[in-house]
Amino acid sequence: MKNDRISMSVIRRLPRYYRFLSELNANSIKRISSSELASRMGLTASQIRQDLNCFGGFGQQGYGYSVEQLYESFGNILGIHNCYPTVLIGAGNLGRAVASHISFESKGFKLVGIFDNNPQLIGTKLKGIEIQSSDNLVDFCKENIPKVAILCLPRDSGENVAEKLINEVGIKCFWNFSHYDITLKHKDVIMENVHMSDSLMTLCYRITDEERAKNATDETE
Amino acid sequence: MKNDRISMSVIRRLPRYYRFLSELNANSIKRISSSELASRMGLTASQIRQDLNCFGGFGQQGYGYSVEQLYESFGNILGIHNCYPTVLIGAGNLGRAVASHISFESKGFKLVGIFDNNPQLIGTKLKGIEIQSSDNLVDFCKENIPKVAILCLPRDSGENVAEKLINEVGIKCFWNFSHYDITLKHKDVIMENVHMSDSLMTLCYRITDEERAKNATDETE
Repeated sequence: MKNDRISMSVIRRLPRYYRFLSELNANSIKRISSSELASRMGLTASQIRQDLNCFGGFGQQGYGYSVEQLYESFGNILGIHNCYPTVLIGAGNLGRAVASHISFESKGFKLVGIFDNNPQLIGTKLKGIEIQSSDNLVDFCKENIPKVAILCLPRDSGENVAEKLINEVGIKCFWNFSHYDITLKHKDVIMENVHMSDSLMTLCYRITDEERAKNATDETE
Repeated sequence: MKNDRISMSVIRRLPRYYRFLSELNANSIKRISSSELASRMGLTASQIRQDLNCFGGFGQQGYGYSVEQLYESFGNILGIHNCYPTVLIGAGNLGRAVASHISFESKGFKLVGIFDNNPQLIGTKLKGIEIQSSDNLVDFCKENIPKVAILCLPRDSGENVAEKLINEVGIKCFWNFSHYDITLKHKDVIMENVHMSDSLMTLCYRITDEERAKNATDETE
């Protein structure tokens, strides 16, 4: 695998391949051609062949891909059999949804600690883990050495916590729901953002833009 | 505005511009040069000028942009002063987090109905809105004609509900947290996806890939 050459756009398609393959596998489909997979995923067969070639290629001409083998290979490529110890900071509505909704173990992560500074939450349990005071965060991390931190915090607390985790604990991997852009200052950090409100605003733009276009057409008619 | 020419990558940067401008505005910063905005956002000044030119251009050479004016213009471009009536389907952990965490009014939307099929949730309130049975969804929509549906559902129920809303009610705009890819079948639908687990798997890939690269280097040393 020549990973240096794999573009972020291919990488971002990997989980989607994995999802589709997982469905096919669950439906006991044994083999699939690149054109069949393409039509299911809304891609072209040639794009699928190109994507798979980034990872060494899996298919046999005229024979299709073995679903099970491809599914397993993608799991390995994604690294989902790792069990990266992970702390969650922020157990408000969003943090709770993330903790409850996401199946960490099947995605390569293991939740080892949850932190909040709300006294009403501290001591209660979430997904079987006792929520600790944020005051314990640095000590806990020094002792347990998590690989990943999930930030379910507003922008400013996101900044405080991220800087502390980077500078005092050396954490370099973040799943970031806050609006603090960690990589602007820390180029070596691996960060994936989930910016729900950006997604909603993009939706608003696209709806509004379509209505503007419609109105413009109506006026010229 | 020549919107036909605006690429999705520019569109996806719009909410980020809006966020940064909102911060600058909140901090009473009056003017900003493209290079200063670029350095804050981790972009190049020329990219910023190009992006802004898509919408007609706002700056004056050597004088910078008026923050307030730019902030307002971006709000208008995004369409956040619209109040698109919106229904949320799925009031489990994720739906609750979305309803509580997202400020819909400031993003161009207004939550008008929440639906779930869990009898324990039906009749309770979320964000001041009484959760209704999913059985009422189609009738409610026929009467209230929402513009947008938010799907906080697993893949299969996501598919059922989306198909019903499209075919029976004519809804064409979705904020989709389910893994059902609506646009594969309905090309004219405007859909923004939030795939949290894809984001987490991408993070897993990037961490795993870095470790693989490190191990490879260690072995050759």
